[in-house]
Amino acid sequence: MIMRALIVSLLSVGAVAIPTAAFAEEPIQPITAAKPKNEKMVELGKMLFFDPRLSKSGFISCNSCHNLSMGGTDNLQTSIGHNWHQGPINAPTVLNSSMNLAQFWDGRAKDLKEQAGGPIANPGEMGFTHELAVGVLQSMPEYRTRFKQLFNKDKIDIGMVTDAIAAFEETLVTPDSRFDKWLKGDKQAINQTELDGYKLFKESGCTSCHNGAAVGGGSFQKFGIHEPYKTTNKAEGRFAVTGKDADRFMFKVPTLRNVELTYPYFHDGAAATLEEAVDTMGRLQLGRKFTKDENAKIVAFLKTLTGKQPEITLPILPPSVKDTPKPKPFG
Amino acid sequence: MIMRALIVSLLSVGAVAIPTAAFAEEPIQPITAAKPKNEKMVELGKMLFFDPRLSKSGFISCNSCHNLSMGGTDNLQTSIGHNWHQGPINAPTVLNSSMNLAQFWDGRAKDLKEQAGGPIANPGEMGFTHELAVGVLQSMPEYRTRFKQLFNKDKIDIGMVTDAIAAFEETLVTPDSRFDKWLKGDKQAINQTELDGYKLFKESGCTSCHNGAAVGGGSFQKFGIHEPYKTTNKAEGRFAVTGKDADRFMFKVPTLRNVELTYPYFHDGAAATLEEAVDTMGRLQLGRKFTKDENAKIVAFLKTLTGKQPEITLPILPPSVKDTPKPKPFG
Repeated sequence: MIMRALIVSLLSVGAVAIPTAAFAEEPIQPITAAKPKNEKMVELGKMLFFDPRLSKSGFISCNSCHNLSMGGTDNLQTSIGHNWHQGPINAPTVLNSSMNLAQFWDGRAKDLKEQAGGPIANPGEMGFTHELAVGVLQSMPEYRTRFKQLFNKDKIDIGMVTDAIAAFEETLVTPDSRFDKWLKGDKQAINQTELDGYKLFKESGCTSCHNGAAVGGGSFQKFGIHEPYKTTNKAEGRFAVTGKDADRFMFKVPTLRNVELTYPYFHDGAAATLEEAVDTMGRLQLGRKFTKDENAKIVAFLKTLTGKQPEITLPILPPSVKDTPKPKPFG
Repeated sequence: MIMRALIVSLLSVGAVAIPTAAFAEEPIQPITAAKPKNEKMVELGKMLFFDPRLSKSGFISCNSCHNLSMGGTDNLQTSIGHNWHQGPINAPTVLNSSMNLAQFWDGRAKDLKEQAGGPIANPGEMGFTHELAVGVLQSMPEYRTRFKQLFNKDKIDIGMVTDAIAAFEETLVTPDSRFDKWLKGDKQAINQTELDGYKLFKESGCTSCHNGAAVGGGSFQKFGIHEPYKTTNKAEGRFAVTGKDADRFMFKVPTLRNVELTYPYFHDGAAATLEEAVDTMGRLQLGRKFTKDENAKIVAFLKTLTGKQPEITLPILPPSVKDTPKPKPFG
């Protein structure tokens, strides 16, 4: 992935005029709109994504930390979990997350389905168990009927729950950013500053890692190459999954799609602004101190990556019934 | 209000067939759909209703406790606030709340505008201050522009914020329940059990207080007439507002619209089910022990009061900018 990106990047460097229509030669590709395979599955997944009864407290849903009003994040340095637990890491955006090579900053979940089960059972996030969450859903006739229609089984299991959530999340893509319009040949879609920013972004090597349709998400990379990254955050990246010393501080490269909306930045959420994030990335990853003007141009380019946000009609959730286990927010 | 309801109720008792089209003679009136006066104001109000940056933590929005996926409530006995504070009282539904004679269980806010400011500045709810919340909004160009368009002022104030939230909340009405269809003359809209339940609801005196379009919300009443209500909850009702002994344990009669969705019940959220709530209300307020069959009929009727839930497209919130004060979830 990195090699391919590098080659593409090198090929582009020499070009005087960027061939705007021929985006095949660009390191960044436009996002295509989602075409849901199964509308009913997506609808069920949306209900589950918004249902706080998948948490012990009955208060925290997927949308609490991956808020679709706010770029699919909570815009907090690290998240708030059950009993106001302070999370260990910045919540990555759910937008375009289906394009990631794996999920979580350390890639410990291979896909969205595997990811979706994590927070439900994490004591510091939704604080529940898979068994109890399934029990809550199983108690409600409407959920039973919907799962039965889709999976042809009377008994709901966690695999069905995470299948549905993943199906919904796969629809959360953000096409039609100004940059994508430019990629597709609309030369007026971005201005000269933004174009200069893109050129700088490519030429200085950002696209080595931030490439493809998601402008990232395709590889794990060491954070802190030219200088070490200084943080009090304890996350060690991919090392936590593989146990290999070489994987220490290797993190999944985050997508830069909608990056204007997904602040604060980095796995520890320490960079509050894009300006700060670009400066740090330049120094630590590229060994290059961007001038104020260069920084501003790259930031201007990054803001062209904000796409059309998914239009979500809030689901109406089925009411709990007499047998539904009650939430336990306080003990 | 009570006299009128009683008279209407007495007039209806003798009738063999209920004049379904002539709902003017019924104690309950159909809800009419909302006709927003100012669409742009409603849109801004919706953004604010969903914006957790009106809280100190950046995590709690109006929708956290008045969740429009769940009947405009949190379905918790009492709510979770800033720093996981356990709230003192059950969160009333925001649905049809514009029809209440006043807001909060003790009526301490005269209208929705006055109510909307309360939770923002309550240390145990959103934990913020009006000044800081306004400062957050003022920092964002999109909010500034929207407020300017609507109020023709450069400087946002809390009155403008609560005006907009109230305008949105006024649209949250739930017409077209099966019961309303029946009221309007569709005799097939409810079944015989439900109709029997309605007759019992009227004849036994429930409509003395639960009347009008909201089936409640029109008066303060003492909770515990024939027997005292036993609870560990410390709320004293209207007494907290007036300081008059006669107002001790006087609470606003809650709307029964969408009551199937707004569990658990009473100001302390102690009744988990409608069956339990109906039983308690019969004994304490009417001095009547409903039989199991009567209870079931009334519950069946109450479930016909679930109306068309507002169809909400999730707002896309403007991103914070460099100058936006940061949320402080942990201290």
